[in-house]
Amino acid sequence: MFERVKAARKRLRGYANVTPVMTSRILNELVGADIFLKCENFQRVGAFKFRGAFNTISQLTDQQRESGIITYSSGNHAQAVALVGQLLGVRTTVVMPNNAPRVKRAATEAYGASVIEYDPEEATREEMADFLRAEHGYTIIPPFDHLDIIAGQGTAALELFEELKTLDMLLVPCGGGGLLSGSAIATKGIEPACRVIGIEPELADDATRSFHTKTLHTVKNPPTIADGTRTPSLGKLTFPLVLEYVDDMRTVTETAIVEAVQFLFYRMKIVVEPSGALGLAALLSGAVSASGRVGVIISGGNVDGDMMSKILLTELLNSLE
Amino acid sequence: MFERVKAARKRLRGYANVTPVMTSRILNELVGADIFLKCENFQRVGAFKFRGAFNTISQLTDQQRESGIITYSSGNHAQAVALVGQLLGVRTTVVMPNNAPRVKRAATEAYGASVIEYDPEEATREEMADFLRAEHGYTIIPPFDHLDIIAGQGTAALELFEELKTLDMLLVPCGGGGLLSGSAIATKGIEPACRVIGIEPELADDATRSFHTKTLHTVKNPPTIADGTRTPSLGKLTFPLVLEYVDDMRTVTETAIVEAVQFLFYRMKIVVEPSGALGLAALLSGAVSASGRVGVIISGGNVDGDMMSKILLTELLNSLE
Repeated sequence: MFERVKAARKRLRGYANVTPVMTSRILNELVGADIFLKCENFQRVGAFKFRGAFNTISQLTDQQRESGIITYSSGNHAQAVALVGQLLGVRTTVVMPNNAPRVKRAATEAYGASVIEYDPEEATREEMADFLRAEHGYTIIPPFDHLDIIAGQGTAALELFEELKTLDMLLVPCGGGGLLSGSAIATKGIEPACRVIGIEPELADDATRSFHTKTLHTVKNPPTIADGTRTPSLGKLTFPLVLEYVDDMRTVTETAIVEAVQFLFYRMKIVVEPSGALGLAALLSGAVSASGRVGVIISGGNVDGDMMSKILLTELLNSLE
Repeated sequence: MFERVKAARKRLRGYANVTPVMTSRILNELVGADIFLKCENFQRVGAFKFRGAFNTISQLTDQQRESGIITYSSGNHAQAVALVGQLLGVRTTVVMPNNAPRVKRAATEAYGASVIEYDPEEATREEMADFLRAEHGYTIIPPFDHLDIIAGQGTAALELFEELKTLDMLLVPCGGGGLLSGSAIATKGIEPACRVIGIEPELADDATRSFHTKTLHTVKNPPTIADGTRTPSLGKLTFPLVLEYVDDMRTVTETAIVEAVQFLFYRMKIVVEPSGALGLAALLSGAVSASGRVGVIISGGNVDGDMMSKILLTELLNSLE
């Protein structure tokens, strides 16, 4: 699998941003370690999802490209697929629930994709996408459970090692496990002694339970603010990869997530969505105790004004001062 | 004066951050020029003010350092002086009005400064600082009207030219004129053909009027959200420097400022205070028409949660979509 990540890195050159790595004196003092934030909020479409989408779609055959692609997501993956479709001239359809936020739909359409709504009471998004695939011959670009998606997501960690040479630990948010398994594959391919730890919200701890019990657990619509991690479970591919390559899984509270987003806003002046702040939340709350050189994947920065206002107006900042 | 800026650059090495320059494909398309944002929101204390404070305080004599320093400000300059005082072991006093926001006072005290409050109904901040100076032998570190402050602020533009080699235009926010005159001195020292344009809020257009009439104009407590530009007027030193080195001055509306802060948040994922977004506001609103290579000084990122929430919840974003 590591070879696949390296191949993805070559494919992405000139298309994906090589995102910056940010540091903070105050953060290092607070945590007692050297922290390096790999800022995928500065990636195209504002999240790491561009990497996997580009790596997958750019490998389609001419015939597949002509027939068009389809995906199901109301989040960052939809926008990533839509933008890659636009860049590569591939007709793109996105299946979204009819209760998806208007802004998400508008953002996806702004990249030239057709949005098809479905009633989540009547069908699952996978059923809807599969129906349209069968009818139109589209190729499905799944959000995480696909080897090219996983390899693409792993390129962020690969870049981090290229820049920093060595790390003692890497913290990675976990939703469906695409970013986590890809990051772990990249890490173990370069520096097997570096510990890779997946971070989930306590309220959406399916992967943590799955990891520790070696049996697939699920959650249903967990009420966490980290909306990128509301995926019901790890996938058929990501579950065994997480078991094989990841060293540990930890959870963080909603309070810890809010405080981490606040810290990134007030102290580091960057906009990070709740899911993107999971690794930092683990460090600041003590859920993970770190020393030495610690990488943190900041997975994305797509947070709407309502959500950010709620987070900023939450009176928790005092505990950081 | 250009020699002073170059000397400041040497003095700051290892103390100030060499802040990153950010770019955006979408921004370049919208404006029709190549835009380079010099991100002083990532400077220490979250604003360019660290540069001038460090350049000035690090040149004090041993006796001056032992006697301590004093400044008057409730904003970024106060925090900058307090941090530099802490770094260099100089006792620091900050005079603030007794109605200054609690967070501003707390942030200044967190850097080890003593805060002395005064009643703005009874005395000006300059009178209060001067009284304490006379009593204790403090050295006053003024917020902008001082040659070492001006030279220090000019180092951000100097770094921008070092990194980019050449620019056709540079846009700089203007409050008291320290950053603007310093940036213009640096620019004209390196590339005299590059046009330097100062940007003010329409509601606080004293420097623009002063520039065009060559007579000093003032404003009193202008109700702009760009709080860093509420200074009553240019100073004894900055006014003639602005007249000599700056090519033009333009104003932007409050709406344009809000839209620029929103753009930086939603599209570029960075936290910028309203004053820091003035240059971008001029580009996005068309107050300045640009082509070629355009530098923009993003002066700072210290915005509180209340203010940012108001900005994010303002329904203007649609006009950018």
